[in-house]
Amino acid sequence: VKLQVALDLCSLDEAVGLVEVLREVVDVVEVGTPMVLRDGMQAVRDIKRVAADTPVLADLKIVDAGEHEAAIGFDAGADIVTVLGIADDTTIDGAVRAARKFGGRLCADMITVSSVAERGAALVTRDVDLVCVHTAYDRQASGANPLDELNEMMTRVPMDHIAVAGGVNAEKLQQIAPHGPAVVVVGGAIAGAADVRAAAEEIQATMRRYGP
Amino acid sequence: VKLQVALDLCSLDEAVGLVEVLREVVDVVEVGTPMVLRDGMQAVRDIKRVAADTPVLADLKIVDAGEHEAAIGFDAGADIVTVLGIADDTTIDGAVRAARKFGGRLCADMITVSSVAERGAALVTRDVDLVCVHTAYDRQASGANPLDELNEMMTRVPMDHIAVAGGVNAEKLQQIAPHGPAVVVVGGAIAGAADVRAAAEEIQATMRRYGP
Repeated sequence: VKLQVALDLCSLDEAVGLVEVLREVVDVVEVGTPMVLRDGMQAVRDIKRVAADTPVLADLKIVDAGEHEAAIGFDAGADIVTVLGIADDTTIDGAVRAARKFGGRLCADMITVSSVAERGAALVTRDVDLVCVHTAYDRQASGANPLDELNEMMTRVPMDHIAVAGGVNAEKLQQIAPHGPAVVVVGGAIAGAADVRAAAEEIQATMRRYGP
Repeated sequence: VKLQVALDLCSLDEAVGLVEVLREVVDVVEVGTPMVLRDGMQAVRDIKRVAADTPVLADLKIVDAGEHEAAIGFDAGADIVTVLGIADDTTIDGAVRAARKFGGRLCADMITVSSVAERGAALVTRDVDLVCVHTAYDRQASGANPLDELNEMMTRVPMDHIAVAGGVNAEKLQQIAPHGPAVVVVGGAIAGAADVRAAAEEIQATMRRYGP
């Protein structure tokens, strides 16, 4: 189980400082959508430089012009780019083409997809590398969490293609880690902690302890 | 019927040059998603400066963190920000709050929504200003066009809340304009023309001639 830290609600300068502290403790660094909207691909270039050998994901949430927009992310140095699972298949196929051309990976964010297992299986068949069950930030206050959708996704998609995101903390990880998804995405529980490195190390320890 | 020109497939420098030529001929200037991904809110600030009194739309296609992400667009000077129609209602409501706070407008892009009329009516009830039927760029090669979805949307949503986008040119406009939607979005048919000003004037003439 790999740990991806999502950098969403901080400035680019703050994010660069966090990555300097976290790059040896996490497996993937995510340049979150709000940072992409604010700073564009400058955010990916700056984070990529400081992330060194740790892969960088650009959370572009592509829903149209798949090949063109994915190429924007890969061209800026992203190792992984996201597309929305609800996108049209032509958009998915275009983003996959860009990923193969650049030697990058493509992750489909399943946010707002109603039948995650069925759509997830179809996306993996279309050569999408990862499908990410994702409880929207805006839905987390209601107590929603990605565990139900993970259980559903597992019925149709192999675990090595599944990522899990949306309000994950050490406590929720105790339920998620035993299933052994390929990636767990953690945002505020690391980036919002007083000691971000200690928080990331605790998450990694929880994943080892409760992992398969 | 207002004419919105979408600037998608050009560099920010080229877009600034186009807006200098087009700002007196079009009613809204759209900073397209690829430009947002590349240049972030710098694109909105630069286009806003040169657009002068012509309103600027930032095509953020928000699908989560609605209030936070819409505020990023309005704070950069956008008059209109887009959210995806498929977003969760909590995300829509957050983006609406940001729009009301900044005195801006919110447009919901109906791309990949299956029941556009039902969802469009619900979004207008939630105080979304415009709902935009939108044939994905990636689907236009197959001959898809937004006219069918416009006809469906009209059954439930008043025309002054409807925008139409997706491969619109002067020829397709002859079918769209008679219905009198609030906004028609034109991209490549203007931005890709040899003489962009002449192309925009031809589109405006077509809208007047075939409009209601």
